[in-house]
Amino acid sequence: LNNISQPTINRLCTLFQILVEMENAGVVTISSSELGEKVGIGSHNVRKDISCMGGIGSSGAGYEVAKLKNAIALKFGFTDQKLTCIVGLGRIGTALLQHAQNTQGEFRIVAGFDSNINKLETIKTTVSVFPAHQIPEIIRKMGIELGILAVPETAAQEAAGRLIDGGIRGIINFTATHISVLGKKVFVKNIDITGELRILSALIKIDSIG
Amino acid sequence: LNNISQPTINRLCTLFQILVEMENAGVVTISSSELGEKVGIGSHNVRKDISCMGGIGSSGAGYEVAKLKNAIALKFGFTDQKLTCIVGLGRIGTALLQHAQNTQGEFRIVAGFDSNINKLETIKTTVSVFPAHQIPEIIRKMGIELGILAVPETAAQEAAGRLIDGGIRGIINFTATHISVLGKKVFVKNIDITGELRILSALIKIDSIG
Repeated sequence: LNNISQPTINRLCTLFQILVEMENAGVVTISSSELGEKVGIGSHNVRKDISCMGGIGSSGAGYEVAKLKNAIALKFGFTDQKLTCIVGLGRIGTALLQHAQNTQGEFRIVAGFDSNINKLETIKTTVSVFPAHQIPEIIRKMGIELGILAVPETAAQEAAGRLIDGGIRGIINFTATHISVLGKKVFVKNIDITGELRILSALIKIDSIG
Repeated sequence: LNNISQPTINRLCTLFQILVEMENAGVVTISSSELGEKVGIGSHNVRKDISCMGGIGSSGAGYEVAKLKNAIALKFGFTDQKLTCIVGLGRIGTALLQHAQNTQGEFRIVAGFDSNINKLETIKTTVSVFPAHQIPEIIRKMGIELGILAVPETAAQEAAGRLIDGGIRGIINFTATHISVLGKKVFVKNIDITGELRILSALIKIDSIG
């Protein structure tokens, strides 16, 4: 990434969520120190991150919430709705499918996939569902950019391979397995509940010794 | 944390998962460079992280998989099963409840909570479920250490407050809302699917400009 670092992207995404909440709460302006407190960084770093957006200044009263939020949305392409699919329609996958139907705006779940064809017939959803072998074809046909992987661990790499074959740009990996992107330019974010529980356990244990 | 940094804890937890997979695949020894490749860091840093465990050496053939795995488990308290609860039994919470019943070993889901008492009566699970106002009492009575927060965003802070009242040690926050631990020594890990989708969108956008 040439002009903006990944940690800065992460922090600006956190900032975006805070600005959404502020705007919903009717807040019009916010200072860099208030923003820093919420993100957990210093006000200097908030201003530095925001300067990456280019041309967003703050008045004496601070940043305009709506203006800063819109600048981040524009810079990061949140204004273009991203079509998303879910692979693996077990309990978690199905929950996400239902959950996602309520989401408006930035992301839209337009397809679900499962290797069990009998299961596809029983799922109650308004989202179209397809057998897993059709993943590459459907991704290309519908222009799906993001995929959420919620298959069993043993099926993770095969399913990821099909997403990548179809030209997916980003994957959220809900399995504990590390997946390979097979040398393609595909971004992966891991969401691993067991892993997070382990980190909490370790923090508690080390804290009790320390 | 006095004797081991949080990034080191994170990496050693990733290492632990890899060692579990290696052991299941029948691998007996592994080198620091192979481990580094899988974690995405250099072999020097792998050795440095492992040295925090104390007294774990590698032979010419590398580290013994089982020995290193067990050393991490012992150091981080993975050998003591942690009792865990889920707050918010909507689609995601219920899916986690079912999912967790299959999990053996390090974590055991022993209670579910929801503020909707009518909902509690309809949930099919072998895990005990209780109304949300009983959270502090049940946590104390059962000795629950970890809580998974899967309530609507507007209910997140109140539910977190109840967990903290009961003396919870760690929280996985599945809501997009930032929660305050009210000055108590409680560790929080955030799992935010929308946030991760946004980061993927931003990475794709910046990559396409860059």
